[in-house]
Formats: sequence, structure tokens, C-alpha cells
Amino acid sequence: MITLTSDFGLKDPYVAEMKGVILKINPKAILIDVTHEIEKFNIRAAAFTLDSAAPHFPEGTVHLAVVDPGVGTQRRAITIQTRKGFFVGPDNGILILAAQNQGIEHVYQLANPKFRLPVVSGTFHGRDVFAPAAAYLDKGVQPAEFGPEIKDPVTPEYVHVKISGGSLSGEVLDVDGFGNIITNIAEKDVAFKEGDSVQVELAESLLKIQFGKTYAQAKPKEPILLVGSHGFMEIALNQDSAAKKLHVKTGDRIVIMGI
Amino acid sequence: MITLTSDFGLKDPYVAEMKGVILKINPKAILIDVTHEIEKFNIRAAAFTLDSAAPHFPEGTVHLAVVDPGVGTQRRAITIQTRKGFFVGPDNGILILAAQNQGIEHVYQLANPKFRLPVVSGTFHGRDVFAPAAAYLDKGVQPAEFGPEIKDPVTPEYVHVKISGGSLSGEVLDVDGFGNIITNIAEKDVAFKEGDSVQVELAESLLKIQFGKTYAQAKPKEPILLVGSHGFMEIALNQDSAAKKLHVKTGDRIVIMGI
Amino acid sequence: MITLTSDFGLKDPYVAEMKGVILKINPKAILIDVTHEIEKFNIRAAAFTLDSAAPHFPEGTVHLAVVDPGVGTQRRAITIQTRKGFFVGPDNGILILAAQNQGIEHVYQLANPKFRLPVVSGTFHGRDVFAPAAAYLDKGVQPAEFGPEIKDPVTPEYVHVKISGGSLSGEVLDVDGFGNIITNIAEKDVAFKEGDSVQVELAESLLKIQFGKTYAQAKPKEPILLVGSHGFMEIALNQDSAAKKLHVKTGDRIVIMGI
Repeated sequence: MITLTSDFGLKDPYVAEMKGVILKINPKAILIDVTHEIEKFNIRAAAFTLDSAAPHFPEGTVHLAVVDPGVGTQRRAITIQTRKGFFVGPDNGILILAAQNQGIEHVYQLANPKFRLPVVSGTFHGRDVFAPAAAYLDKGVQPAEFGPEIKDPVTPEYVHVKISGGSLSGEVLDVDGFGNIITNIAEKDVAFKEGDSVQVELAESLLKIQFGKTYAQAKPKEPILLVGSHGFMEIALNQDSAAKKLHVKTGDRIVIMGI
Repeated sequence: MITLTSDFGLKDPYVAEMKGVILKINPKAILIDVTHEIEKFNIRAAAFTLDSAAPHFPEGTVHLAVVDPGVGTQRRAITIQTRKGFFVGPDNGILILAAQNQGIEHVYQLANPKFRLPVVSGTFHGRDVFAPAAAYLDKGVQPAEFGPEIKDPVTPEYVHVKISGGSLSGEVLDVDGFGNIITNIAEKDVAFKEGDSVQVELAESLLKIQFGKTYAQAKPKEPILLVGSHGFMEIALNQDSAAKKLHVKTGDRIVIMGI
Repeated sequence: MITLTSDFGLKDPYVAEMKGVILKINPKAILIDVTHEIEKFNIRAAAFTLDSAAPHFPEGTVHLAVVDPGVGTQRRAITIQTRKGFFVGPDNGILILAAQNQGIEHVYQLANPKFRLPVVSGTFHGRDVFAPAAAYLDKGVQPAEFGPEIKDPVTPEYVHVKISGGSLSGEVLDVDGFGNIITNIAEKDVAFKEGDSVQVELAESLLKIQFGKTYAQAKPKEPILLVGSHGFMEIALNQDSAAKKLHVKTGDRIVIMGI
């Protein structure tokens, strides 16, 4: 089984080209889209999305993820072997959150021309390099056959939560399609109980809101802090877009404090 | 075979999480998306969409549909067994149109923790409750094993057409991606013939238009009334958006009268 | 294997209806979406997209493509048999670019009612005519069984590049989701080398830019001319939308000249 994550959108032939390449090499592959609607070049949102989806797939799944502003430059192409499966993509941090959660065993560079298309374009390694690698991994080719092991994969700096006193400082990892604001502050970082009041500093706003369990605990259009289904703290409005109303975007700082 | 309908969008990991959960339980499941682009919280549009798609699938198909503004509250989770297959979703009316068309045999509550994920979040029953239920149904688990039978599933009030004299009063069920205005007035409710003139009252407009068979019978940008491919009366502009030009939205009243 | 290309969007039940019809006829069919987000009625963009995707699929693949403003009129429905596979769609030029690239062997009209749905609507031949044809072709029905051979399929006029002196005149075939401007001028039409300066006339702009190999060779937000992954000349901005900045749309004229 192979999952696909990218910022290619669904309008263009790019995703289908990758799928065609995979199915030519490995006609029995089962292909599942995670999403191709990652904001263009937003590696952080892609890393979060892959990290949310990957744990739900069977062992041995190959996760292919391509958000690749550096395509055609010297950035490396890699595959990560974890305790539960494989990741394939550019070495720019997109894979690392999800891979760390599965326990990284080895990282290899995709250097062996045997497992690429015969001609590699300068603009579309998703099709020419990453799709073939995913197809061959799913077919049983050993990751070490793809190229030399590397010890220094690019590791994103953005997943650090600062805890000092009762205050948690983090940032906005993603805004989902409902406008829910997803932070990098994890369930394990907090000790709030249902019904606690908390203070949230966020973009232009200073909010006093309740910590709850489900969206419908807030009145319609009112905010709530809860642990999202992915295990991260999330600010939501019941049946409305929190990100829109609070003018929040990916990367914004957030501070949460019990009161 | 399992179909999926939701308002989750394709940008976020939600749909992939549901698919991963299904494939972990039932690796041989064939998954077909109906749509994940239902307008957020628009149960009516979801009910119409599912009703349009379901008749075209083979017998025994499991239809999973999740538009669920009440997630985490006391609203029930159900499966409906029909003469042709199964439906899984929240008990808020989303399933009932399509299920009625197949002939409802039994409705059961999804209460058995054996057929849920071990931990059920307060925010994402699509993944934690409904996806596992669909996976187990597709695998052959009997619907009665999921929980007690219920006799009072929530039934939407919005699919009633009032016929009085030559006048039909209904409402707008959906606006499709072409801007065609789809009403709840069915082919069987009307006795128009091709070429008949009809009067249509709709939002801000009072139109005199022809009843026809196909979009291209109208001049470019001109309106026509026809029976859509789903069996409902539809107001369309040839190669333009009727909903935009006539300022119409889901739920608006419509009156059609022969003249 | 069957690929699907259309302008139906993903919001409505249309694509799922086609898939249901195919799977009822041919439950073992493997379905791969190329895209359903073609701009409404833009046959040219669909032809380009199909032409980009098709070469990457295995031999014997059936490519179903429906952008069909003339649905319900006298326009013909066809299947094209090529040296590598099959194409199914309306006879309006949507199939011809991709089919020519594979080498056209025969074109047949879809006229045999045996291979349609029992009732054919006036508005949705994608479901009633084309989807069944694709399903039966994939199942092994011979193309000649669908109807009479035709010798005059509609051939688009828009793929002609005029070469005179050092100047190439063509037009914009497509704008991709990144805003890259894709022209109908192919790699074989030009003799530029990496680093050459070229003059590009396009909509309101007269640009002097470099011919390069990859987006990142331009500074962020700066333009570059390169051969896209599909083999056509493309004007791109590094990490920005060229189409937006240069006010370019499908069908615009373009002239490229070495300087």
C-alpha cells in the first residue's frame, strides 16, 4: 500500500502521472491519497498532515510525500525506514515528524539510477524519482539498495514547545478546512481538565476560553480549546472558522496559560 | 465495496485517516469517494448527493456518509440495512433519502464498542466510529451485532413538494458545480411536455422559460427547465451558472407552474 | 485499468455515478482519476491534461475523458483505438492530442445500445454512454462492436506552432495550479541552450528572460523559460504564479524569439 501527499493540487495531470508511473512498475499497488491540496510550498503543513494520517495505516505502508520547492537543486532525495514502514520524499523536513513517531531506523539517499525513470526532468522529481522509489519499495526492494545511508536528514526546527511556569509557547502548525487552528502543543504538554478556563494569546487576540472535549460544548460561533483528533491542542469555533475570525495563519505564535 | 461522502474536504488528513482505519480492519475493501466537498454542515446537500450516487453502485455496497455538526453530543450513530445494501453515519437525516429509495429494512444503533476504535475522540467519529463500522459491515459482520434496533431515525422535513392546482411548491436541494439549480420536485410530480412554457418563481426572479430535455436546447447563457440526470427538476443556463445569475442558494423556495 | 478526466468537479455526485456504473459492469476495474477539475467546458485544457497523463500509464489502459458542452446534441460519441490503448469520450477534440501521440489505429462511433445504460439522459452521457463504454472496453469487448468506424474525428485547430526565422508563434495551452504558463511550443520546436536569453511576447508583457532547466535557477518571484515535465515550453516564476503576475489565460497568443 502506498499513500500520496503533495501540493500538486487535483486540477493538473501531475498526480495522475505519479500514479501511472507507480502502476507501470508495480501494477498491484494500492494507492491512497492523503491529500494533494497542501498549500503550495508549505512543508510544515505537509509534515503535520502526514504525521496525522500515517499512524492509521497498516504496517509496511509506503508513504510518498512531495512538497519540493528545491526540486532540481542539490537538496537530497531520501527514503526513511522506520519500525513500521517507509517514507519517500525530498530531504527538507516533510517526512521527519511522521517518521520520528514511527521510530526511525535508517535513512538512505535515493541515488541509484536503476530505481528512477530513465530521464529525470529538472522540474518533476515526484514523477521521475519519488514515485518509482515508492513503487519499488512497495514491491519489496530493500531500502539500502537505493543509495548510501545518511545520518543527517534535515530536521525541522518548528516543533518545539516552550513550557515555563504555567505558560506554554508554541506555534500554529496548520489551519484545517473547518478553520480550526491546530497548534504544535501536544496533549502530553498540558494538564488542563474539562471545564478549566484558559487564556490564549494568538495573533491579534487575547482570549479567555474553556478547555473542553468537543466542538458542540461551545455555543454556535463561540471558541473552545480542545485536544484535536490528532493529539494536538486546537482552538475552534463551534460551526465557524476560528482562523478567519481570529486572523490566524500557519506559523503564528501561540501562548496558552491556565487561569 | 464502500463509498465515502463527507464535508471534510480534501486538504486535511481526515479522509485518509478514515481510509487507513478501514484498510487496517479490512485490507481488501474497495473504496470509492462520492465527495468530500459537501458544503460544511450542509446535511441536506449531502443527503441529496448520496441519494444521487447510491443507485448506481452494486448490491451490497456500504455507503458511509459523515456530515456531523453534532459530533460528540447525544445524537445517535446508526447503520441502516436496506433491500440493496447498507448505510452508515450519524442519525441526523443524512442517510435517509438514499436509504428510503432502496427500501429500509432495519435501523440499528452503533453502540457495540467491539466495532469502534479503542479510543473514541470527541471530535472525529468519522474515523473512530463510522469508518470501523463500515469496514466490519463490508467484511460481513451482521448489522444487528452493532447495537439495538431503533424505530425512530431522524427524518428530514425538507423533502415535501406541495401540489395545488397547476402549481408545484418545493425548494432548492442543491446547487451543483455548474451552477445548475436542483429542486426537490421530481419527474413524477410534473406533467410538462418538451417545449411547454412554464413560470418559475425563485428567490428574486419570476421567469418564463421552456421545459426541455438538454442544456444545449437553450441559447448560450439562457435558462431552461429540465429533468436532471438524478430525476429532479433543474433550472439551468446553457454554459453559465444559473445559481449565480439568479442569486439562488440551497433551501430557497421555488414555485413552478404551467402557463 | 481505466483513467478518468472531466470538468465535473469533486463536489457533486457525477464522478461517483460514473464509477458506480463502471464497477457494476466490471467489478474488477481499477479506476485512476486524472482530474475532474478541468475548467468547465475547456476542451483544450482537458486535451492537454490527458496528453500529459496518458503516456505514463500501462499499455491497454482505457482513458475516459468527458468535457462535453454539446451533450444531448448531434455531436458524436467515440472510442479511439491506438497502438497502446483506448480512448473514450465525445468527438469534440478532447481525445485527439493524446491519441495521436500513441498512434491512432481506428475510430469508432459509440452507437450500439447494448453498451449503454438502458435509459440515456439528455444531460449526462458521462454516466449513460461513456462510462459503460469504458467498462466494456476494459472487460475485453472489441472496439468495432460499439458502432461504425469513422474517418473524420473532430481535430482541434489549436495545436499549431508557426516557426518563421528565429521566431516561434503559438498559444497558451494551459495554466497549471502553480500558475506556470504552458504553451503549445514543444521541445523539438526550439534550439535554445541553457543560459540563452530569449524574448517572450505574451498578453500585455514583453519579457527578456533566460532559458533554463529548473524553477530554482530563477531568483524567487523571477521568470524563467524552460521545458516543462510534459515536453512543452513553459514560462514560470520561481515560487510564484506567472499567469497571475503576467495576466495570462488559456488561449492567449505567445511569441518566443532568441536574442
